[in-house]
Amino acid sequence: MNMLKVNGQRLREDIEALSKIGRGESQGVYRTAFSDADMQARTWLKQRIADAKLDCHQDGAGNIFARLNWRDGNASVMAGSHIDSVPGGGYLDGALGVLAGLESLRRIQELGLKPRRPLESVAFSDEEGRFGGIFGSRALCGHLSPDDIHAARDLAGITLVDAMARQGLNAMDALSASRRADSIHGFIELHIEQGPILERQQLHLGAIEAIAGLYKWTVRLSGHAGHAGATPMDMRQDPFQGLAEFSTELPRILEEHGSPRSVATIGRVELFPGAANVVPSLAEFSLDVRDTDPEVLGLLGDAMRRVLSAIARRRQLMFEFDVLSEIEPVKCDTKVTQLIERTSRALGINSTRMASGAAHDTQIMASITPAGLIFIPSKGGRSHTPAEWSDWQDIENGANVLLNTLYQLANET
Amino acid sequence: MNMLKVNGQRLREDIEALSKIGRGESQGVYRTAFSDADMQARTWLKQRIADAKLDCHQDGAGNIFARLNWRDGNASVMAGSHIDSVPGGGYLDGALGVLAGLESLRRIQELGLKPRRPLESVAFSDEEGRFGGIFGSRALCGHLSPDDIHAARDLAGITLVDAMARQGLNAMDALSASRRADSIHGFIELHIEQGPILERQQLHLGAIEAIAGLYKWTVRLSGHAGHAGATPMDMRQDPFQGLAEFSTELPRILEEHGSPRSVATIGRVELFPGAANVVPSLAEFSLDVRDTDPEVLGLLGDAMRRVLSAIARRRQLMFEFDVLSEIEPVKCDTKVTQLIERTSRALGINSTRMASGAAHDTQIMASITPAGLIFIPSKGGRSHTPAEWSDWQDIENGANVLLNTLYQLANET
Repeated sequence: MNMLKVNGQRLREDIEALSKIGRGESQGVYRTAFSDADMQARTWLKQRIADAKLDCHQDGAGNIFARLNWRDGNASVMAGSHIDSVPGGGYLDGALGVLAGLESLRRIQELGLKPRRPLESVAFSDEEGRFGGIFGSRALCGHLSPDDIHAARDLAGITLVDAMARQGLNAMDALSASRRADSIHGFIELHIEQGPILERQQLHLGAIEAIAGLYKWTVRLSGHAGHAGATPMDMRQDPFQGLAEFSTELPRILEEHGSPRSVATIGRVELFPGAANVVPSLAEFSLDVRDTDPEVLGLLGDAMRRVLSAIARRRQLMFEFDVLSEIEPVKCDTKVTQLIERTSRALGINSTRMASGAAHDTQIMASITPAGLIFIPSKGGRSHTPAEWSDWQDIENGANVLLNTLYQLANET
Repeated sequence: MNMLKVNGQRLREDIEALSKIGRGESQGVYRTAFSDADMQARTWLKQRIADAKLDCHQDGAGNIFARLNWRDGNASVMAGSHIDSVPGGGYLDGALGVLAGLESLRRIQELGLKPRRPLESVAFSDEEGRFGGIFGSRALCGHLSPDDIHAARDLAGITLVDAMARQGLNAMDALSASRRADSIHGFIELHIEQGPILERQQLHLGAIEAIAGLYKWTVRLSGHAGHAGATPMDMRQDPFQGLAEFSTELPRILEEHGSPRSVATIGRVELFPGAANVVPSLAEFSLDVRDTDPEVLGLLGDAMRRVLSAIARRRQLMFEFDVLSEIEPVKCDTKVTQLIERTSRALGINSTRMASGAAHDTQIMASITPAGLIFIPSKGGRSHTPAEWSDWQDIENGANVLLNTLYQLANET
């Protein structure tokens, strides 16, 4: 089989050009959804699509499409990701998938290839979550309600409606972005891993089988404040000691009730009153638990609650929790995953099957079309930081896998 | 022996009157040092001293004295504590010792008793630490330097010099507050326990043998930030897991290297970046360790450092710490402590010898004169909260022990 190759130099120039838009003083990328920098990036992207003489389309959610051989009523093959960023993020997260998608269409066009199906590359709006996340893909899959749109606001309290209006967009138009499932034959996203697995295993590509589901809780353990000097250890009801005990139990809980893919993170802790000389009365913390199997997630949730209840009982604390979010795990399409693996092998890139612990637009797209996700290694596993980067060779390899997978899907009947 | 008795009703009226000054909306007492409320309380106290026809004296540190039979050159016996409060504090912390001291002098005077020595009761400035704490007693004992005075500032950045000037006081005059050791024959402070020990043991009085020393560290464990979904558990360098492990080791460290009086508290924790979906890169926390034996404190410090180093090594974290403060333990005068015990027994109050875990003006006064400290039970061990309270009977009992102990000391040759 004759494998196609992207123009690596052109892709690199695009990545470098886009990385300069919204570049903060501390070197991070500041391109939160519908910010001025995000709008600049959109304008730049539309110009690149026009430069390539591809059709450019923007839907009601602000998703931007490049289209090749667009024919209404003919199910397209789509590649894409997002160009918005977290505040102070890296230059590849999302941008890689959008620009490699664009490059794939450009390459197929300039080689004069005529696949059976139309091709699209897409930049989805607000994947990172200024207004809740995976907004553009949810709009495209018809998952948004008018209430969702009205309720969405960022951490500063700015509503999605106002933020979009400020940029000349009508948020309610996002309802019109909904696509019929039969208008898309398949979807593929190329993304950096955002974790250390590929690098540690000296592999250069991951074919994703499943995207982890998760729940985020806010947990509160409350006890009894006391003077740090005047309260003997055996007379304390110290909720931080309870939290510490729970935290050291996490590995055991994951081993006994989880899968090898299960992870649990305590990323935020606040003690009240929070003074060095006061035994705290309250420990509030976040608990983020992920797995690719919904049943395992359920078992882990049960186990976490049991352990927290037991600790609270033994230490005379009160245990409460709120569910902040809950996302179901998603399986990628097996045939697409196999196609990615075969393509990778044909290109001489050593790859592995793996799961994605992070959320991606792919998991939404999987609800209406066969979807696949491709990872390339992240240096040091770094993510959501200016220090995020990947080898140019890995980037080019990933883009080549994307290009050939797309092309093969586009030739399917 | 004929025991003296305070006028319990008058003492209660004084406590209730003072408790209304600086009473916040949420019912706590807001009388931080040299605030307007503190100045109102001082004015009220001076009036009560005048009402009792006792001599009133204010030194350069703003310490306010009531004096009975004052004769220059004759070493006095002194009782006292402080009337400043933490923000949102209780009505007895400090105030009890000042008002019971005043009541003792009033009672000796109105009974027409003529002890050999002059008597003083004192309200020390800024015990609670708006500007660093135990300020008035340090001034009286000659522990302050001009640099100390110039450097002192509160959490809002207001200097002691400015705060005192605003109230018509010259902070540098605090240097003149220094008293010769031979001008004081002994010092006694009556205070609430601020802990649960007396209440749990159903005892009504504590004769304090020693006041714990302490060190406060700010500890930083740093690791490596990671995506909460994309970083497998065994590839994490999670400093919060390190902190949790250390925290669960604390009881063992105290048992193996400390005394039954040793306590250790983690009262403040901050994780960076502090997001639910990011494995933290840094855990910063306070560590407050106390004991009455300086050698034990040293051993505990060594053990804490070893355990933190070992955890950091094993978990690939970096461990650093800063010493925020270090206070040596102080022994109370054995004869004074025995006198308090005998007096208590003679009054039919069941008492115990114990240590103070909290800092008090007594530990400064002990550097120049035989000093003693008396505790009465705190309900629920509560301290530095509007919910702080003690039985009126315990208050009256404590005041009676103070009165009789003072009177006996004042009759010593």
